[in-house]
Amino acid sequence: MKVNLICHTPNPERTVAMAAKLCYSAIGAEQLQENMTEEQVSSLVQKIVDLGHFSTLEHVSFTFAVEGVSRVLTHQLVRHRLASYSQQSQRYVAEHDFEYIVPPSIKGNKQAEAIFEKLMTDIREAYDNLTALGVHREDARYVLANATETKIVITMNARELLHFFRLRCCTRAQWEIRKLAETMLESARQVAPLLFAKAGPSCVTEGICSEGAMTCGRLERILAARNQ
Amino acid sequence: MKVNLICHTPNPERTVAMAAKLCYSAIGAEQLQENMTEEQVSSLVQKIVDLGHFSTLEHVSFTFAVEGVSRVLTHQLVRHRLASYSQQSQRYVAEHDFEYIVPPSIKGNKQAEAIFEKLMTDIREAYDNLTALGVHREDARYVLANATETKIVITMNARELLHFFRLRCCTRAQWEIRKLAETMLESARQVAPLLFAKAGPSCVTEGICSEGAMTCGRLERILAARNQ
Amino acid sequence: MKVNLICHTPNPERTVAMAAKLCYSAIGAEQLQENMTEEQVSSLVQKIVDLGHFSTLEHVSFTFAVEGVSRVLTHQLVRHRLASYSQQSQRYVAEHDFEYIVPPSIKGNKQAEAIFEKLMTDIREAYDNLTALGVHREDARYVLANATETKIVITMNARELLHFFRLRCCTRAQWEIRKLAETMLESARQVAPLLFAKAGPSCVTEGICSEGAMTCGRLERILAARNQ
Amino acid sequence: MKVNLICHTPNPERTVAMAAKLCYSAIGAEQLQENMTEEQVSSLVQKIVDLGHFSTLEHVSFTFAVEGVSRVLTHQLVRHRLASYSQQSQRYVAEHDFEYIVPPSIKGNKQAEAIFEKLMTDIREAYDNLTALGVHREDARYVLANATETKIVITMNARELLHFFRLRCCTRAQWEIRKLAETMLESARQVAPLLFAKAGPSCVTEGICSEGAMTCGRLERILAARNQ
Repeated sequence: MKVNLICHTPNPERTVAMAAKLCYSAIGAEQLQENMTEEQVSSLVQKIVDLGHFSTLEHVSFTFAVEGVSRVLTHQLVRHRLASYSQQSQRYVAEHDFEYIVPPSIKGNKQAEAIFEKLMTDIREAYDNLTALGVHREDARYVLANATETKIVITMNARELLHFFRLRCCTRAQWEIRKLAETMLESARQVAPLLFAKAGPSCVTEGICSEGAMTCGRLERILAARNQ
Repeated sequence: MKVNLICHTPNPERTVAMAAKLCYSAIGAEQLQENMTEEQVSSLVQKIVDLGHFSTLEHVSFTFAVEGVSRVLTHQLVRHRLASYSQQSQRYVAEHDFEYIVPPSIKGNKQAEAIFEKLMTDIREAYDNLTALGVHREDARYVLANATETKIVITMNARELLHFFRLRCCTRAQWEIRKLAETMLESARQVAPLLFAKAGPSCVTEGICSEGAMTCGRLERILAARNQ
Repeated sequence: MKVNLICHTPNPERTVAMAAKLCYSAIGAEQLQENMTEEQVSSLVQKIVDLGHFSTLEHVSFTFAVEGVSRVLTHQLVRHRLASYSQQSQRYVAEHDFEYIVPPSIKGNKQAEAIFEKLMTDIREAYDNLTALGVHREDARYVLANATETKIVITMNARELLHFFRLRCCTRAQWEIRKLAETMLESARQVAPLLFAKAGPSCVTEGICSEGAMTCGRLERILAARNQ
Repeated sequence: MKVNLICHTPNPERTVAMAAKLCYSAIGAEQLQENMTEEQVSSLVQKIVDLGHFSTLEHVSFTFAVEGVSRVLTHQLVRHRLASYSQQSQRYVAEHDFEYIVPPSIKGNKQAEAIFEKLMTDIREAYDNLTALGVHREDARYVLANATETKIVITMNARELLHFFRLRCCTRAQWEIRKLAETMLESARQVAPLLFAKAGPSCVTEGICSEGAMTCGRLERILAARNQ
């Protein structure tokens, strides 16, 4: 998996602070932008994030180029609707040399890995044979596996990112999208450390777990630690 | 493919007409609902649709249960973000007996079909062997093909449906999602004939084609017919 | 304020339960709809609401006709973006006889009320004089007050309604939109009691308050009561 | 009216071109970003805009700080839901010294202007008297006029901007929001000339008018000129 934060709104924390300040003051935006000190920006952003007043976070957005992920991951990913995606097309791009993602649980099991690798070879052969018979790419791809590698460009604003991290950094999210979420969070934190200071699964950020009987137990451990 | 319109806002055309009327009159909603005649409703809905003033169409929504479609289709479908989806999970539902969708271009070619069917058998075997080795469903599904059958519940409001039909009833949309769009349109038309009277691809509804050099030629034929 | 639930998705709780069940079972939608008993529907909806797994709630939507509210309220209301609105237009509807909303804090103070009423008369006069001078309605309305009465049709799905109630049933929301939210909640509960059983401000539903130092103290009282 | 483009995604056209290219090629995002020449970027962006394939335009967003506009304008503006807003609050900011917007049709008419100015003075007095009587700002503001000046920060992505310009640069949009739209378009064009080369009302960009009998006649003139 390769995740690149290829661009983002410049000065994201200053932008958020300025938008927030505007709501509660009679001063204009330009003056606010120029005159706020670094300390004022920091303290305001921290307050916003602490209170969960996230609407101003929408003014800054982050664009990631993601490669080396499976179609399992992207089918889950694009269910997040408050975001923009551009994905490599299997209708138009030839998949003769497709790469694929092997789940760790399979990689770690010799027998399982052999079954998996053998099947990928069979699929490549079937794909090639079908296209050789004149079947168009858009139909030949019906034989491609969920594991097939794809590329995708993702843009989310900071509010949606927090929501995405809340759901997908959860232990109960599938390992692949969790790894994506964690990597994106790491990149985002480098350019906006305060905005993402407390980002993560809901057990960590809010002391809430929505998994019921399926809980991983992390919230319980957090609460136990607090009560000690 | 099985498409059922399982529920929708009652009296969709009257609801749209009432909302539209409210914007331009001093009368209240209740009176409007009660007092509009069938003729008034029809003529207002026709005007709304003709002018493309679609915002009031958002008040009525339609829910479809769709079965017997591939994951190729649903990955395309869920890119429509102004809609709601509930899809059968490959993480939790065992896919031991998975069904699959065979593209017509493959079904119509004995050799291609044999390759396709053989591969599906290989995939089922691989899936079963992996789960027998203790690989969880969520990882075993990496071997499942795009062709694997899935079920999905879709809710869209009438405005989004028009947009969906505009893009997906286009000859250049892939055959499977086009068939879905056409079937949904047929069902929707039965309960709201005026709302969907002119629904369809943009060449038909607006005399516009966005496919450039890839055009199917339908718009050209429409314009030629008009000029005769 | 007059709030009418003018239409909604039929059988909202059964629809939600069916969509949820589909995700975790191999059975089709039609069978699910027919074969689920009332008890199964109830217990599933309760589980969904308890865990906060709200995505299936999007399949059911509710349409309210609202009259006798101010433009203060609607300017706040339409900031909720995952919803559909049709509002009476001040550009096209003559406001010669406009009604207006008097805040309780003003109604309860004779002196304040007199100032308020006098100004409304002045505004009506100014509006009439401007239109008499040939100023179009769309410009004459610049003199109309925030208090001016308006009508609006609102459609939200059940998930967005829960979010709306969470924010707007809060004591810190302004009295007028809080009254709207509470009235809408009451109506919605009558047709879908389980879906909205626990709807309300975040202090009640989740034990969270986002108002910081501005808190109304309700959460504290809730927690104190629990610890007794 | 003061409109400042305070920030935007860096290199908006290169970003759009890269995202588009990724969909149709097997090459990775990083290489695409580095290796595309200015000419390739230009020609790809032009093709995207010509065909109306706007999804990749969502990856770049633009943030405007707007001052000196009325609440008439912002109530219309925030109906555009695929956007983010932070607006100066009348609940928290004292409006003792409120400024206001005078429509040109009123400014250009001595008698009308006198009525308007007199009323604004009356409103200020009423507002001050109400707050002096202990009425909170959030309720005192019910007397404030639609004309009252406000400030707002707007973020839209390029796709939504094109849609906004399409509707609001139309002659039939109200003068104030049209002026805003035209000013925003001018600013956006300076940093992304190709993306916004053909932005504007639908008569200009697509040869379509949705105003029916209310048309301003511009489309007719455009078509007449073409046929000469």
